[in-house]
Amino acid sequence: MSARILVINPNSSATVTDDIARAVDGLRFEGGPAIDCMTLAEGPPGIETQRHVDEAVAPLCRTVERESADAFVIACFSDPGLHAAREATGTPVFGIAQCGLLAALARGERFGIVAILEGSIPRHRRYMASLGLSARMAGERAIGLGVTQLAQEDIVAARMTQVAEQLRDEDGADVVVLGCAGMARYRAPLEAHLGCPVIDPSQAAVGMALAMLRSSP
Amino acid sequence: MSARILVINPNSSATVTDDIARAVDGLRFEGGPAIDCMTLAEGPPGIETQRHVDEAVAPLCRTVERESADAFVIACFSDPGLHAAREATGTPVFGIAQCGLLAALARGERFGIVAILEGSIPRHRRYMASLGLSARMAGERAIGLGVTQLAQEDIVAARMTQVAEQLRDEDGADVVVLGCAGMARYRAPLEAHLGCPVIDPSQAAVGMALAMLRSSP
Amino acid sequence: MSARILVINPNSSATVTDDIARAVDGLRFEGGPAIDCMTLAEGPPGIETQRHVDEAVAPLCRTVERESADAFVIACFSDPGLHAAREATGTPVFGIAQCGLLAALARGERFGIVAILEGSIPRHRRYMASLGLSARMAGERAIGLGVTQLAQEDIVAARMTQVAEQLRDEDGADVVVLGCAGMARYRAPLEAHLGCPVIDPSQAAVGMALAMLRSSP
Amino acid sequence: MSARILVINPNSSATVTDDIARAVDGLRFEGGPAIDCMTLAEGPPGIETQRHVDEAVAPLCRTVERESADAFVIACFSDPGLHAAREATGTPVFGIAQCGLLAALARGERFGIVAILEGSIPRHRRYMASLGLSARMAGERAIGLGVTQLAQEDIVAARMTQVAEQLRDEDGADVVVLGCAGMARYRAPLEAHLGCPVIDPSQAAVGMALAMLRSSP
Amino acid sequence: MSARILVINPNSSATVTDDIARAVDGLRFEGGPAIDCMTLAEGPPGIETQRHVDEAVAPLCRTVERESADAFVIACFSDPGLHAAREATGTPVFGIAQCGLLAALARGERFGIVAILEGSIPRHRRYMASLGLSARMAGERAIGLGVTQLAQEDIVAARMTQVAEQLRDEDGADVVVLGCAGMARYRAPLEAHLGCPVIDPSQAAVGMALAMLRSSP
Amino acid sequence: MSARILVINPNSSATVTDDIARAVDGLRFEGGPAIDCMTLAEGPPGIETQRHVDEAVAPLCRTVERESADAFVIACFSDPGLHAAREATGTPVFGIAQCGLLAALARGERFGIVAILEGSIPRHRRYMASLGLSARMAGERAIGLGVTQLAQEDIVAARMTQVAEQLRDEDGADVVVLGCAGMARYRAPLEAHLGCPVIDPSQAAVGMALAMLRSSP
Repeated sequence: MSARILVINPNSSATVTDDIARAVDGLRFEGGPAIDCMTLAEGPPGIETQRHVDEAVAPLCRTVERESADAFVIACFSDPGLHAAREATGTPVFGIAQCGLLAALARGERFGIVAILEGSIPRHRRYMASLGLSARMAGERAIGLGVTQLAQEDIVAARMTQVAEQLRDEDGADVVVLGCAGMARYRAPLEAHLGCPVIDPSQAAVGMALAMLRSSP
Repeated sequence: MSARILVINPNSSATVTDDIARAVDGLRFEGGPAIDCMTLAEGPPGIETQRHVDEAVAPLCRTVERESADAFVIACFSDPGLHAAREATGTPVFGIAQCGLLAALARGERFGIVAILEGSIPRHRRYMASLGLSARMAGERAIGLGVTQLAQEDIVAARMTQVAEQLRDEDGADVVVLGCAGMARYRAPLEAHLGCPVIDPSQAAVGMALAMLRSSP
Repeated sequence: MSARILVINPNSSATVTDDIARAVDGLRFEGGPAIDCMTLAEGPPGIETQRHVDEAVAPLCRTVERESADAFVIACFSDPGLHAAREATGTPVFGIAQCGLLAALARGERFGIVAILEGSIPRHRRYMASLGLSARMAGERAIGLGVTQLAQEDIVAARMTQVAEQLRDEDGADVVVLGCAGMARYRAPLEAHLGCPVIDPSQAAVGMALAMLRSSP
Repeated sequence: MSARILVINPNSSATVTDDIARAVDGLRFEGGPAIDCMTLAEGPPGIETQRHVDEAVAPLCRTVERESADAFVIACFSDPGLHAAREATGTPVFGIAQCGLLAALARGERFGIVAILEGSIPRHRRYMASLGLSARMAGERAIGLGVTQLAQEDIVAARMTQVAEQLRDEDGADVVVLGCAGMARYRAPLEAHLGCPVIDPSQAAVGMALAMLRSSP
Repeated sequence: MSARILVINPNSSATVTDDIARAVDGLRFEGGPAIDCMTLAEGPPGIETQRHVDEAVAPLCRTVERESADAFVIACFSDPGLHAAREATGTPVFGIAQCGLLAALARGERFGIVAILEGSIPRHRRYMASLGLSARMAGERAIGLGVTQLAQEDIVAARMTQVAEQLRDEDGADVVVLGCAGMARYRAPLEAHLGCPVIDPSQAAVGMALAMLRSSP
Repeated sequence: MSARILVINPNSSATVTDDIARAVDGLRFEGGPAIDCMTLAEGPPGIETQRHVDEAVAPLCRTVERESADAFVIACFSDPGLHAAREATGTPVFGIAQCGLLAALARGERFGIVAILEGSIPRHRRYMASLGLSARMAGERAIGLGVTQLAQEDIVAARMTQVAEQLRDEDGADVVVLGCAGMARYRAPLEAHLGCPVIDPSQAAVGMALAMLRSSP
């Protein structure tokens, strides 16, 4: 039977889950691992605060205990419950924030992060420090749009471009990471515009899970 | 037309190239990128010293200038010519040492490296420092076998196990990286024996190249 | 009306809460802040894993939202929910792990931590790194006793002494932090035995809260 | 007999000593340690240069050898003679610079320092590095006022506010440390104005000494 | 017989070699080591890219194997082949980039680098990181002049002054390193203008080689 | 008139001054700078504690203010008063500890220090951290001999060899620094025995001062 990668969107938004599912479609192939994406129904509607991060942990752990998979991917840029999930299951667990940053380091010298909310930046900075990766960070900047604006693709694309240009030109980033799940649709056009690599963290994480599952002769 | 990942073994040993080709076989699939592995005919027979590293650069750069590909992978654990190749071509270039370490960081807290030669350790340590990853390194230890012994799989496997156990038990590694191309055959048994992830760097790098090429839209 | 420091024990063990309450008794005085210690009834019975840490966050946040105080102290050496609680309330929140380490740095060059469980050490190490304090850490060692043994004071004291001596003699610590709430009774004898400062983190945190509350002319 | 905390102002200005004495008044209580503040008569009139720092050491060491106390606090933001004093006496010695920074780290992610003189900043930076705390420093800025202006509270307050706002808004500090003894009167209004914690280092140090002295059951 | 320091200019420009030879003239004296400067005929015309750096290694190694000397100095600010040369010969080998930075650290707190080309800065930054010296770097800025302009001393001097002033005033450097061989003629006037030390790396390296050779008994 | 390097031995031992004078004899030459070595009569008999370090500062500053020289060298491995002296004079001031370590970094990857007294090691470690050089330190070990034994060259040589071998073999040092002034006589034999460079810090510092003075035009 074929292997299974289970991607868990720890917020309760099915729209975001659908975006993630589309983002990783290029990594599905005949005979390859199934890549299933699920919504954490008991998760918060969005993960915007440290409290949201921490509160997603319990339902997430129950999910990895209940579900059968060969690799789990936690698809939120704060990697909620990554270490708790690793304690709860023997199955490998990947966090998209880690994987996105690590994939960026394989492409450039100094990464910049496009965050959604200003308020997430200190939380991300603490996480970066705990990973020992701060020395490679050029900067992080938020697009800072409200819910209504986030629904309008052209506004998001314009603001993301502006922020990414600042990361490149003012902060010295030579690779950019999208600091959120469900933004993959903006990746390719932004990369084309900037002229430097842009990483979608969900794609990076599923890619790493795939490479792991296909690494035995 | 389908995409192409060109894996360049910068030493002149076709046997090593064959080993690498086999190692990444699980990442080939119908409709996916071609994964071609080539030997750098003008490269040194093996890359054991800083001089070997530096001397591989010129033929390697000529290769990336001449060859047509969508991604290059330099398949030597010293990442010879990685930055020179990136200057020489607009095509993304991956180095297996970087990718192996980064893939390890997605799996554990502190990585250990199984090197072949004692003399490579200071070179690797300088590289680790230049990457800003030293804080996550538990240790590096060499198997220290001569050419004759390296040809005997059971001796290599036994010595690798011994060294990896020291990395885990004495140095505190919770993920192990094989510090050489062409050792993938030892990965799965070593992982099973140790009970912690073992990363083959060529697989990690080709996996990252694959994820990049399949990331749109 | 007088100020109030509310110390929250995020596990559900009233015995531990009582130990903490006794530990900070020396900081209570006529006209000074009330120092109230409460048990988080909905918390896990003990905080031994990352999951326990994360799961304590929701009830802890509800508590800081509901309770009226001039300073909160989270009395668990993993500082569960510290940042979430700071988002949830405008009242200052102290974490005993941070405060214990910081108080140790005011006394010595390199701190050693006496942990209860081996399994907590990676979690603590990640936290240390996120705080940027790793360079001052001499080491961390666990007493590694089971529940039955933890109830026997003479066994705990003997094992704690042994571990602290290793931190001092092998790891080079010149100040020792008790890596757990509710162990204050062992502090003074251990300090006398070792000949170097020993810090109880709950005392350190309540002391900092007290100094803050009494800092206006 | 009650315990005694002896706060030594290492410069010869009795006015500064009086300011410090007033600053720590909130930490005096019935039955608590005596908190005595003394002027180092042989000290320099002010500590403005590295030479002043170093020259205060000899009289300071003679003082800790001569005086009887349960804790010493060296009340100058360069912590002059801290390590020499620790060699000279078995009694715990606290330095207000260390304690001020450590207390700040218990309250925020990144501290900013309001210095008096531009020329002190390199000296402080060296000290910060020796403490391993540089990664948590957002910045340091001097108010840069001359002696006459320093005597005018409204000018000092206005300039301090300006500098602290720059630390918060341009450097990203979320907690501010007053980089001088004898400035405690500006603490509370500045904190109210900024909306983030402001630490007076003498209060922080005496608070730590107090917590230590009251830490035995 | 007297000792010999052989300074190797790894690019093929004899003019640069002459400049270096003049720069170190003050270190020649009766009875002291001969200081010979040679051009690496097979080297690239200038060392402007990582590829140039790497390609200089092979002829450089052949040179240190062939030549007889008591100390070698590699006179290019990228230290091409430093480690390879050390593997190739038992004679001490100095790199001028390392020596220039180290000599700067003996004079000031934070160094600034005046580079020739913008494109060299990432390469230098990687090198700085591999040396563990990044924390002492204030900044690096390029004069960014084309070949024609580089031949006009007044243009070079004016631009160098401008860049060095930015390093001092905006980046906080208190010592400046000329990030190139063959620029020694600008050192003294620039130092006089800036009021802070300016280091020529070739002079620094030959000085270190000289001190080594004259250190016995 | 010729330039003058004034080497100040900050302890009052004329024997040590004589040893230093002999150590730097190889750097004296016809037409070169005078290299004068003086004893700081008011200094402590030996510099063994932080207090000795700090107390040497005042007479040392008076000396640099009074004496006329083109470069000062403070010849004690704790660099007492280095920054104070730099404030007191416009003439360049070199510290032998800094210079010894920096010269070592030009020769090897990781330095080891042979200290005289165990008690100096924490002081040195703080200094190393303030210099940002800790990442390159392999270790420091003390020979730990009493005054009588220090007078017996064979005992010192034997113990120094033993300690240096531990630095090389157990700590991984590939270059060794003598952590004291006046030990230059042991340098060459120790280097010959170890097979790796051994640095005398006074020679390193005078060499740097010499290179500076001979760096124009």
